[in-house]
Amino acid sequence: MAHNLEQTIFLLSRTPAALDALLRNLPDAWTQRNEGENTWNAFEVVGHLIHGERTDWMSRARMILEFGETRTFEPFDRGGHEREIREKSLSQLLDEFARVRSENLGQLRAMNLQPAQLELRGQHPAFRAVTLSELLATWAVHDLTHLHQISRIMAHQYREATGPWSKYLGVLQCASHSASA
Amino acid sequence: MAHNLEQTIFLLSRTPAALDALLRNLPDAWTQRNEGENTWNAFEVVGHLIHGERTDWMSRARMILEFGETRTFEPFDRGGHEREIREKSLSQLLDEFARVRSENLGQLRAMNLQPAQLELRGQHPAFRAVTLSELLATWAVHDLTHLHQISRIMAHQYREATGPWSKYLGVLQCASHSASA
Repeated sequence: MAHNLEQTIFLLSRTPAALDALLRNLPDAWTQRNEGENTWNAFEVVGHLIHGERTDWMSRARMILEFGETRTFEPFDRGGHEREIREKSLSQLLDEFARVRSENLGQLRAMNLQPAQLELRGQHPAFRAVTLSELLATWAVHDLTHLHQISRIMAHQYREATGPWSKYLGVLQCASHSASA
Repeated sequence: MAHNLEQTIFLLSRTPAALDALLRNLPDAWTQRNEGENTWNAFEVVGHLIHGERTDWMSRARMILEFGETRTFEPFDRGGHEREIREKSLSQLLDEFARVRSENLGQLRAMNLQPAQLELRGQHPAFRAVTLSELLATWAVHDLTHLHQISRIMAHQYREATGPWSKYLGVLQCASHSASA
C-alpha cells in the first residue's frame, strides 16, 4: 500500500509500549543474550532505537524540508547505541525510548505535513535521492525490523530447548543474523 | 541455554500485553492485510494463538503427565483459528487471548512441576518422543514465532513505500512467508 502519514504515526506511537510490555523486568537470560559474535542482544537493540530517535529520523526529515537535495544526510552511526546503553538498565532505556519517541512524534505532528511536502527529496549518502515519504515509511518499518529481530534473538536462546520442534518454528529458520537487523 | 520453567512462564505471561500494545485500535490497514494468497493477517495470527491456548499446549502437557508415551497427541489443527475469529473484532480477540493465556499459566503454575516431571515423555504424531520440557519451551518460542511473523506481515504493507531503503530493512528480507510462521 502507499505511504499514509497517519498510519505511520499510529504505528510509531505503539512500539515503545509494545517493547515495554514484552521486555521490562524479564530475566536477563532473555534480554542480555545475543545470537553470537557481533550480534546484538535485546537491550542493545533498544539502545539503537533510542539513538535513531536522537540522531536520525527527525533530523533527516528537517534537512529535507530545509535544504532539499542540496545537503546530504549524515551517515547513521550503527555503533551510536553504545553511548546510549552505557551504565543504563533496560528499564531506563525503555523509559528513555518512550520519552524521545513521544517528543519526536509531537514535533512530527506539529509540522502538519502536506502531501506535496511528503514528495520533497533529500540526498541519502548511499541511495542519493529519497523522498520525505520514504523516510517516514522507513522509520516505521525500522521499528518492525527491530521487533522482528528481538523476537528472533529471544527465540534463539531456546533453539536447543525446543528439541524436534525447532525445525518447525519459523522464527528459528530466519536467516538474517546480523547485528543491525 | 537449557529450558528453565520460570523463564518460560515469564515470557508466556508477556505476549498478550505486548500484542495488545502493538495492535489494539491500529488502523485495519496494519492488522487486516496479509502477505498474499494463503497467508495470515495479524488478526488471524491472534486467533491462531487463542486456538493454541484452548486445544494444544496445556492439553498436551496434561497428556504427558497422565499417559506418558502411551497416547499420541491430537494433531494441531492449523485451520482451527477460523472458529475463533468468526464475527469477532481484534479487540475481542486480544481480550480473549489475555484471558485464556492467564488461565493456562495459572494451571501451569498450580502443577508445580518438578525437574523429573519435565523429563517425562509424550508421543507427538510426527516426531514421536518429545519431553514435557521441550513442549513448554516450544510454547514460548511459538509466541515469538508469531510476534516475528506479525512484525513481518505489517512491514510487508510498506514494502514499496520505503523506496530504496527496502533492500536494507532486515524484516523485508525474511523469506518465510507462510501462513503459519
